[in-house]
Amino acid sequence: MRIYLAEKGITVERELVDLRVGEQFGDAYLAVNPRGMVPALQLDDGEVICESAAICRYFEAVQPDPPLFGRTPIEIARVESATRRIEHEGYAAAVYVLRNGNPAFAGRSAAGKWPEMAQIPELAARGMLMWEVFVEALDQSLADRAWVAGEAYSFADITALTTIDFAKAIKLLVPDKARHLKRWHEAASARPSAAA
Amino acid sequence: MRIYLAEKGITVERELVDLRVGEQFGDAYLAVNPRGMVPALQLDDGEVICESAAICRYFEAVQPDPPLFGRTPIEIARVESATRRIEHEGYAAAVYVLRNGNPAFAGRSAAGKWPEMAQIPELAARGMLMWEVFVEALDQSLADRAWVAGEAYSFADITALTTIDFAKAIKLLVPDKARHLKRWHEAASARPSAAA
Repeated sequence: MRIYLAEKGITVERELVDLRVGEQFGDAYLAVNPRGMVPALQLDDGEVICESAAICRYFEAVQPDPPLFGRTPIEIARVESATRRIEHEGYAAAVYVLRNGNPAFAGRSAAGKWPEMAQIPELAARGMLMWEVFVEALDQSLADRAWVAGEAYSFADITALTTIDFAKAIKLLVPDKARHLKRWHEAASARPSAAA
Repeated sequence: MRIYLAEKGITVERELVDLRVGEQFGDAYLAVNPRGMVPALQLDDGEVICESAAICRYFEAVQPDPPLFGRTPIEIARVESATRRIEHEGYAAAVYVLRNGNPAFAGRSAAGKWPEMAQIPELAARGMLMWEVFVEALDQSLADRAWVAGEAYSFADITALTTIDFAKAIKLLVPDKARHLKRWHEAASARPSAAA
């Protein structure tokens, strides 16, 4: 979200929700998003948009330039396809590991407001296996292109960068042999948006 | 995919991949999509687009009418947000149940080509819990609108219909008390596209 807005040069009023103290489940935030998930965008008329991708697509429609979801039909398809693969394989893997392998998430093994859900250690193990496969596939896909979905930086790169940095925080790493991915990560991290 | 194309009035040459006999893991199909997942769209120049949503967005860009991903920024956001919620809560729940609870999927507890993955019975149980929460939330969201993302039929309705009919096949049902959802399901199923 932060990276996307910086790439677009869009400024919005922000309010930080402190996940460490469970502020997302406090009455104030649940009044904004009853699902207790961040981020959420509240418009001037009060309507709330949930889900990062939906918020980004809202801004993309309001301000198309620079295009981050592709311009031509094939570019649009490549961005969507790459984004989903990263989410389903990489991001999902990291969430499995974090929420099912870390005692701090006992009883909250899925993001958001759900009935109590016991952790499943086998799911953390599955996440680690998925992570390896994901990293190898993403590395290979970057062998012949500058960015994740082609020659233009896109929302798929933002999704990949967010995923890899989130995973790193829970010790799911990118091995040195994944050199295309390392090169890409360095380039993506060097953009001003990454430090925004 | 089938429903989307019918709603758009788009015809494409189709080739059926018989999942029952594992044709998606045969050499012929793996040459098209090495991940062994359907559907995949092969363009005239040979490029292959994977992921249903990416294929639909490709066609949406080629032929915008009738719009199924929203027209205005807020409609676009509502369609994306609703679609993702259905996928993450409903579709994911049904996949958890099917792949982790059905002996026929032993060793293949995630869709696509992965290293062997043992089934996790607790994940099937989690899927059943998620399904109940999902159905109740979707029912409530339909109390004040005709279609899932507002007053216009959209890709979110296609995702919901596909999810509910897929879940029904594995005995995850919509209870009678979910009357808004039942009304919606009847209306969505009555469209010619549902029988295409």
